[in-house]
Amino acid sequence: MQDTVKKYKQLIKKRAALGHAMGVLSYDSETVMPKNGAPHMAESMATLSEELYRLRVNDELRDMLNELEANKAELDPVTRREVELELKELKKLERVPVEEYSAFDRLISEASIVWREAKRNSDYQLFKPYMKRIVAASKAMAGYMYPGKPAYDALLEEFSEGLSMDMLEPFFKDVKAKLVPVIHAVCECGRQADDSKLTLPFPIEGQRRLSSFVMDFLGIDTNSCVIGEVEHPFTTAFNKHDIRLTTHYHEEDVLSNLLSVAHEGGHCLYELNIGDELIGSPLASGATMALHESQSRLFENMICRSPEFIALLYPRMKEIFPLQMQDISEELLFRAANRAEPSLIRTEADELTYPLHIMVRYEIEKQLIAGTLSVEDLPEAWNSMYKEYLGVDVPDDKAGVLQDSHWAGGMIGYFPSYCVGSAYSAQIYHNIAKEIDIPATVAQGGVKPIVEWLTDRLYRFGKLKTPEELSRSVLCGEFDPDYYTDYLTKKFTELYKL
Amino acid sequence: MQDTVKKYKQLIKKRAALGHAMGVLSYDSETVMPKNGAPHMAESMATLSEELYRLRVNDELRDMLNELEANKAELDPVTRREVELELKELKKLERVPVEEYSAFDRLISEASIVWREAKRNSDYQLFKPYMKRIVAASKAMAGYMYPGKPAYDALLEEFSEGLSMDMLEPFFKDVKAKLVPVIHAVCECGRQADDSKLTLPFPIEGQRRLSSFVMDFLGIDTNSCVIGEVEHPFTTAFNKHDIRLTTHYHEEDVLSNLLSVAHEGGHCLYELNIGDELIGSPLASGATMALHESQSRLFENMICRSPEFIALLYPRMKEIFPLQMQDISEELLFRAANRAEPSLIRTEADELTYPLHIMVRYEIEKQLIAGTLSVEDLPEAWNSMYKEYLGVDVPDDKAGVLQDSHWAGGMIGYFPSYCVGSAYSAQIYHNIAKEIDIPATVAQGGVKPIVEWLTDRLYRFGKLKTPEELSRSVLCGEFDPDYYTDYLTKKFTELYKL
Repeated sequence: MQDTVKKYKQLIKKRAALGHAMGVLSYDSETVMPKNGAPHMAESMATLSEELYRLRVNDELRDMLNELEANKAELDPVTRREVELELKELKKLERVPVEEYSAFDRLISEASIVWREAKRNSDYQLFKPYMKRIVAASKAMAGYMYPGKPAYDALLEEFSEGLSMDMLEPFFKDVKAKLVPVIHAVCECGRQADDSKLTLPFPIEGQRRLSSFVMDFLGIDTNSCVIGEVEHPFTTAFNKHDIRLTTHYHEEDVLSNLLSVAHEGGHCLYELNIGDELIGSPLASGATMALHESQSRLFENMICRSPEFIALLYPRMKEIFPLQMQDISEELLFRAANRAEPSLIRTEADELTYPLHIMVRYEIEKQLIAGTLSVEDLPEAWNSMYKEYLGVDVPDDKAGVLQDSHWAGGMIGYFPSYCVGSAYSAQIYHNIAKEIDIPATVAQGGVKPIVEWLTDRLYRFGKLKTPEELSRSVLCGEFDPDYYTDYLTKKFTELYKL
Repeated sequence: MQDTVKKYKQLIKKRAALGHAMGVLSYDSETVMPKNGAPHMAESMATLSEELYRLRVNDELRDMLNELEANKAELDPVTRREVELELKELKKLERVPVEEYSAFDRLISEASIVWREAKRNSDYQLFKPYMKRIVAASKAMAGYMYPGKPAYDALLEEFSEGLSMDMLEPFFKDVKAKLVPVIHAVCECGRQADDSKLTLPFPIEGQRRLSSFVMDFLGIDTNSCVIGEVEHPFTTAFNKHDIRLTTHYHEEDVLSNLLSVAHEGGHCLYELNIGDELIGSPLASGATMALHESQSRLFENMICRSPEFIALLYPRMKEIFPLQMQDISEELLFRAANRAEPSLIRTEADELTYPLHIMVRYEIEKQLIAGTLSVEDLPEAWNSMYKEYLGVDVPDDKAGVLQDSHWAGGMIGYFPSYCVGSAYSAQIYHNIAKEIDIPATVAQGGVKPIVEWLTDRLYRFGKLKTPEELSRSVLCGEFDPDYYTDYLTKKFTELYKL
């Protein structure tokens, strides 16, 4: 058996190396690669992706895993959990015909290119045939991977184990019932602060120094995490010692980068604090997308939009941008960071209206997969839901149905994780606050005890425990969406004196 | 047979994808990766490197190549040349015991880390045991790969086919006899220009704009070539549409980056202009290191240090750096770009003294491999040769024997390619000048006809023709080092009115 463990670990190592390479190629494509390098890069990545598939699904691995599973009592806990997850993954993948797997890969790589072009020209017709194929292929994949499950539940599960329509229906119903009235009240109260001065140009060089300020505040070691610049920020971790956080600098929107670094910094803290004993193991990453997102939302919204953090930030901004900050008070900076206002673009949405952006996508995805909405009618459905939920008129598909890259990337079922993550973060904050005085901690200039609390209950385990165990651990029990709706209602009622 | 061609091309494609990934990983390590990512990156690269070796040396490939070789009359010219080179490479590699191949890989990856540390502390003793192992392993590898050849000839051949001690002995003798007196005369003439004002701080942001100016002048499409920032500049091409040029900005030395971009730009032009019909083929890269270096030297020294280029550069520098350039005349800028002065560091050496830096390394490598110099006595030999050839006292090993990364990287035998490349460039310039008025072309603001001449005779072929054919094509006959020594003698005699 020891021999099998050794052989298994060797295979895993080879696969990890290839996965690492794919990660770097993908990061490089987004951050460094010259434009003309794209086609060749896509070809190399497709070739390596096939290779990676062969390393994930093959007879040798299946035999090894079955042997290890049969002797699981003798395995150390890390290997035992690896084997459990590997077998689950293998069984899931081997039900997908290999040609369809590759075809899906090719489809989304082509679709992503076409989507970019379609978005640029606000031309949904161009993207439509790809969207049609992606919906069909996603349904098919869902059927192969999770037979017996409703297709959309399968897609939700793929990104965040435990998410399902049964869970999301009441959640979104609650969100809609409780938050829509708050949004209406905010819109009607006439108490928006005039933060137009914050759109003066803030030179990028100074904004880079603000990024460092946020990173320092979060206690992120820049020897393990670097900042790259991209169109749409994301975080990718090759391992806990090499994390790539990305941001986008807008001269005329200094808060955008700041809060983006805070958000990605939350993802980063999760990966940075995974236990050392998991290094090199496939268990060494965040457990689900929803749990990951709970961390980015926690640090972005609940820590870095807090009055205590703004009080730290304000003098630093005055120092770096004396001219631009001349007429801006600390109060105004705080109000600007917490401004709520229905808008068109999800990635620019505030904390209060954000869940409604997700709700639109959830409704649409659910219906597309169920077949009750056709790809043909998608833009119309989108526009009418934006009008209904957010009260905004969508001027074109660029600012509407084409705004996100997810569908083109084959990620139907991903969006709800964002919103559930936000909801988790409210419950988690509540739990931490029972043990730690969060505002006082932030006011002292850091988040160390908060990160320690989270490390203890969540981060260090990676995927060693199940998503269910980890959620319970960090939520201190069942998920209760009331924490989220209560938090948002209270916060914005106070802010806007509703 | 068509089936074999197809299978062979598939294998090549997989290998190319893996090679592409390794290239990106290596580039990422140098330019982006956070420090703590190094150990894991090294592990992934070692794993992939073993995989790459298996794709280069295996029975299936050998059988395919033998079959294709036996039917070579039926192959298209690209595939025919590929098969020829692949077979040669395969035969060479399969003579190396696989454990020794891997051990060498591991050795140089460890050695490079130790060398960095040793250089930082100027501590040759720390590096010495690795140097000892590298010399022994290089000799062993040379014996396996090129049986019957003197070991140092084998190492020279490995980087530039056609280079040998028989060729280099008279070359360096000539260089020494003709150039050492010129260097002495320069030192004694007392006509160094006072270019101390060029060491004022030139902000990096402005220097970046100068890099763009040089790129534009060379006609390099930034959609295919991006600039990265590193400690020691290099160029790496993943394919002709994705080239990574690197540079280093020194605030107090504005010419350093400028000329570095010109140098790397020469490498870039070679790769950019490889024929489209070679895309995806292993033939799609420069033919030898010496030929590659001939291009970087040509564009750095003979084009971008020319009075015509300086005349274009001067007003641009005045525009970007009005304060710093206040008291600097065009004449002074030209003199500074062409200053000759014996110094300690090869990478900072001027055109005239550069070959002597290489000569030191050539002598030492030759003797180390022959066993007539011990690793123990290396720093002493280095220091005494620097005194003898360049008249400088080496203060410590950091500025001496530890200055270059090559030996730690297992690249014994590489240095002479630099110098032969420089010598080629003089002969190539002479040949181009017979057909094109180079100074007038440069004065008009570009190098297009020059690049076309070089593309026609050299670039487009990649490795399709032999290095011998390509050298003859671009040198217009036999290599004649007199062009080089005559060029340097004439240039510096005039400059310094000797």
